[in-house]
Amino acid sequence: MSEVSWIAVDWGTTQLRAWALSGSGEVLQHAASARGMGSLAVDQFEGALLELIDGWLDAARVTEVVACGMVGARQGWREAPYAEVPCAPQAMAQVIRPEVSDKRLRVSIIPGLCQRAPADVLRGEETQIAGLLAARPDYHGLVCLPGTHSKWAEVREGQVLGFQTFMTGELFALLSGQSVLRHGMQGDGPLELPAFDMGLRAAERPLLGTLFGLRAESLLEGLAPGAARSRLSGLLIGQELAGLPERWQGLPVCVIGDGEAAERYRHALATLNIAAQTLGAEQVTLAGLAAAHQQIRGGT
Amino acid sequence: MSEVSWIAVDWGTTQLRAWALSGSGEVLQHAASARGMGSLAVDQFEGALLELIDGWLDAARVTEVVACGMVGARQGWREAPYAEVPCAPQAMAQVIRPEVSDKRLRVSIIPGLCQRAPADVLRGEETQIAGLLAARPDYHGLVCLPGTHSKWAEVREGQVLGFQTFMTGELFALLSGQSVLRHGMQGDGPLELPAFDMGLRAAERPLLGTLFGLRAESLLEGLAPGAARSRLSGLLIGQELAGLPERWQGLPVCVIGDGEAAERYRHALATLNIAAQTLGAEQVTLAGLAAAHQQIRGGT
Repeated sequence: MSEVSWIAVDWGTTQLRAWALSGSGEVLQHAASARGMGSLAVDQFEGALLELIDGWLDAARVTEVVACGMVGARQGWREAPYAEVPCAPQAMAQVIRPEVSDKRLRVSIIPGLCQRAPADVLRGEETQIAGLLAARPDYHGLVCLPGTHSKWAEVREGQVLGFQTFMTGELFALLSGQSVLRHGMQGDGPLELPAFDMGLRAAERPLLGTLFGLRAESLLEGLAPGAARSRLSGLLIGQELAGLPERWQGLPVCVIGDGEAAERYRHALATLNIAAQTLGAEQVTLAGLAAAHQQIRGGT
Repeated sequence: MSEVSWIAVDWGTTQLRAWALSGSGEVLQHAASARGMGSLAVDQFEGALLELIDGWLDAARVTEVVACGMVGARQGWREAPYAEVPCAPQAMAQVIRPEVSDKRLRVSIIPGLCQRAPADVLRGEETQIAGLLAARPDYHGLVCLPGTHSKWAEVREGQVLGFQTFMTGELFALLSGQSVLRHGMQGDGPLELPAFDMGLRAAERPLLGTLFGLRAESLLEGLAPGAARSRLSGLLIGQELAGLPERWQGLPVCVIGDGEAAERYRHALATLNIAAQTLGAEQVTLAGLAAAHQQIRGGT
């Protein structure tokens, strides 16, 4: 096996993922665990990381670890204060280096981004945006990052001009799993496109007035659970798209995400006559971490 | 003590409340328990009721019990099929009489209402609307019934023309107690009016795009928990008011509710220059159950 040159880490609230990379950028090893930021005390981060990467380290030298995500939050390993937009996605001058006991390691944490008005924050997505820009430095348009909290960012001339968070995924989980709507939504079947589209079309009506209709239709008309779940997803994603700032209209859209979730957004955008490009999340995250690593190496 | 003439029962998902009334409508006794519909199997309803009212019954005769609420749902004591609007609030011709073992009892359950398009249902609120109409038979306007699920109904010439449900209270509980927003909302202080008003004013922006701002402001600007909770309440109630059908504009509004919750709606309506009248929920529920009892007595 080639020598491990550096290690890329994506450390979110619920998951820790690491990749060992060669000097030429090849992925040599990959490992993941459920030891996300949310489950760790401040003195447990180094151990959780070593659990995954110990075998990749060389006792004779220091290996650089470049990390992004909630690991840099106030409740994380060490806080990496937000960089304020407009700015380049990765504020490399403000990279944070937590102290480590293991002499084989040097860890760098990439700061997240903040926006003052309207107030907003992100962590981790800045690196995916940097990954997109590594491949397309001239990209001018929107980046859509679906998830528990969907993020939309406007990118131009290598800078993030502004961004907005939507709690779409979290609201879907709460409403379908814990609200009164759960009674008509049991199960976990595939997306039913006609029901999803019906939800999208209802996006012009205010959300609070449409939700209970799903319960009522299940009581009165026997609306099936799969259709109800799909309609709810369409209602929420439709509201997200309808809630994008007007100044963003007409810009191209790049969706960063995987599989069915990304496809759901691509389809929803297509119904608004917006042809979106889709990029895989892992590929873009790795490209963003590689861009950060290059700058760290150049600067030291 | 005067003789118990009949017994009024308001039986919701989480609560059971009963009142013993004299022939002249005076409340002689009141009792309540947490044995709501949601916690009872079909063969437990009679027992749960007797627990509260056994001492009010006379072995020498049959006492009429008139009940409204979720007790008539499919998962309740016995299903009382919905009456379809437009119709009088209480479909007394469709009253349901569950079988009882105790010979001292006769129980009548008042049906809820349904609407076909948009699909909607209610149970219990029909009786509060009937209570309002008992005092003001000519009322033409909207009835606002705040709660876990707020209900708004249009009433004219003694009929409910249409209604709409908003999941405002349930969304507030889920978002403030279980979403990422809970981190900035701990505690249970009184409503902070300036923050509530700020939430109301943000109602013109789509809800999904405004929620995460509360989290970001708490991270970036130290938004206090009480202000964040109050702002969320304003955001949701503002969205509810903005989501009322256009055809209802200009109609007078009567809020049925108690204490702080009713006052919160009255205040929110006042910011839209709508002067709403407020009526206490218990008084209106009792008036509605009395109206039903009068018809039952007249018809037998």
